[in-house]
Amino acid sequence: MNIGLDMMGGDFAPTEAVKGVAAFLSESNVSVHLTLLGDEAQVKPLVEAANIPSGAYTIVHAPEVIEMNEHPTKALKEKKNSSIAIGFYLLANGKIDAFISAGNTGAMMVGSLFSIKTIEGVLRPTIGAYMPREDGTLGLLVDVGLNADCKPENLNQFAILGSLYAKHILNFDNPKVGLVNLGEEEGKGNLLAQAAYPLLKENKQIHFTGNIEGRDILLNKADVLVCEGFTGNVVLKLAESIFDIVQRRNIHDEHFDRFNFEQYGGVPVLGVSKPVIIGHGISHATAFKNMIRIAQRMLQTNLMEKMKDSFVGQG
Amino acid sequence: MNIGLDMMGGDFAPTEAVKGVAAFLSESNVSVHLTLLGDEAQVKPLVEAANIPSGAYTIVHAPEVIEMNEHPTKALKEKKNSSIAIGFYLLANGKIDAFISAGNTGAMMVGSLFSIKTIEGVLRPTIGAYMPREDGTLGLLVDVGLNADCKPENLNQFAILGSLYAKHILNFDNPKVGLVNLGEEEGKGNLLAQAAYPLLKENKQIHFTGNIEGRDILLNKADVLVCEGFTGNVVLKLAESIFDIVQRRNIHDEHFDRFNFEQYGGVPVLGVSKPVIIGHGISHATAFKNMIRIAQRMLQTNLMEKMKDSFVGQG
Repeated sequence: MNIGLDMMGGDFAPTEAVKGVAAFLSESNVSVHLTLLGDEAQVKPLVEAANIPSGAYTIVHAPEVIEMNEHPTKALKEKKNSSIAIGFYLLANGKIDAFISAGNTGAMMVGSLFSIKTIEGVLRPTIGAYMPREDGTLGLLVDVGLNADCKPENLNQFAILGSLYAKHILNFDNPKVGLVNLGEEEGKGNLLAQAAYPLLKENKQIHFTGNIEGRDILLNKADVLVCEGFTGNVVLKLAESIFDIVQRRNIHDEHFDRFNFEQYGGVPVLGVSKPVIIGHGISHATAFKNMIRIAQRMLQTNLMEKMKDSFVGQG
Repeated sequence: MNIGLDMMGGDFAPTEAVKGVAAFLSESNVSVHLTLLGDEAQVKPLVEAANIPSGAYTIVHAPEVIEMNEHPTKALKEKKNSSIAIGFYLLANGKIDAFISAGNTGAMMVGSLFSIKTIEGVLRPTIGAYMPREDGTLGLLVDVGLNADCKPENLNQFAILGSLYAKHILNFDNPKVGLVNLGEEEGKGNLLAQAAYPLLKENKQIHFTGNIEGRDILLNKADVLVCEGFTGNVVLKLAESIFDIVQRRNIHDEHFDRFNFEQYGGVPVLGVSKPVIIGHGISHATAFKNMIRIAQRMLQTNLMEKMKDSFVGQG
């Protein structure tokens, strides 16, 4: 397998990206070839200095960089030689099998939606985020911002995509799906949640366990937490801010350390036909290493094929 | 002023309600008469044992109790001699000036909406919740569940009601209003937030400062945080759960202690013509004391008149 990594994305690129590559290769015993996209003049000396085996990677020169604050669509169109634009070009053409970047999130989303295909039958791809629980496991909250307005069927599809990810990447045998809601009882909710509930309940592809209130998001009452991207985004950023507060207050606690979302590397775009992972802007080496691992696991488990199978006949 | 208190509401009623009354009266130097609603056989001995001055209160016998899990509308209709039903009757008829209960939240909401009038011009009353910030102040999040689906104009009105509450009860000179959203820039958001933004921006009655992301909810970037009740409810319950986690992990921290939402007593229903305060089910003495104080302050500051003035001409 050939995994493409944007070496220029993120606040600490390319240094931390290189460190992440080195860490991944030193720990991995599976044959993965890495395609490193970025400014060769910057990337090559760092990679060579890191003693990364020359057979393990190929550097693809990408002289342009899409900056964090650029308009995604405009930047992708104008900067055809940027690491992100080239990454999606290689992915779309089968030259790489997965693409990872901690760069401009918007550009990564636009690239995911328009450069590669959505899985047939999927109405809207989604992005999820991990929710740390006290038992050491991670729940998956979908959507966290890609789809601010949703229809009930979108939530139902997020549940399928999230369940497959939770099963194959997060290792839950039969992930419990919860609908994020303002009350526990069936019938509660805004119009969207009320309409989504019966769809989830009747969906034989998932293990739906009912509504999940805000207080249960950080518990393991459900493993896949489904909501539209507006609420999901607010929840994710609120949870991220808890870590900031804990840090500022000099609280040292194993569980709250897991609210450092940076360590998880990145979140996959679910519902597109190839593995795309969007990293946090502040990604350090561990984050890059973890993102490569997730991409590797998505390929190893044939996750994309499993997702495609789940939507056969729904197109 | 005459403040009505449901002595039978909450998990620790009437004992904790009585303690709260005693604590309030021992600290207050303002003439407040308390109307204590509940089963006289239970309430009277407790009140007498607490050495509460007999001139400071009147017990109104309410032989029935609406339990926490009863259907609100049905219970209010069938239990006309319950403390909540009698409380709203007295409030509607001017026998008491404010009504407080830590009992069945749904029954309190139904009572607020149907027993007393909505302020003329207010489309939908709302309930808020406090958000503790590190500087020791409290922000106000509105709505937190009364209105799961909202129109842009609802959010605009929540901003007015919340600002008046923040100014007169929370003592902010010129409270900053933020729109809870998934991004900071104008134009971001779901359809509701996108449509609410210009209304808030053009609203001369409030000090709108723009969008507020999830990460800013617990900061003092804005004092009044406006959103529909679905997201608000999820945020509130998530914040409440942080306190549970902190407790379970035996973390002692002054700031996180303020995530114990019980201490704040209760949240007012905003947009109705008289002060109604809905308490937390697990309210203890301090919570009851604080709820009486808030009702007192709402009456002292003529908050209801100020709210009515703000909506003149909008009816």
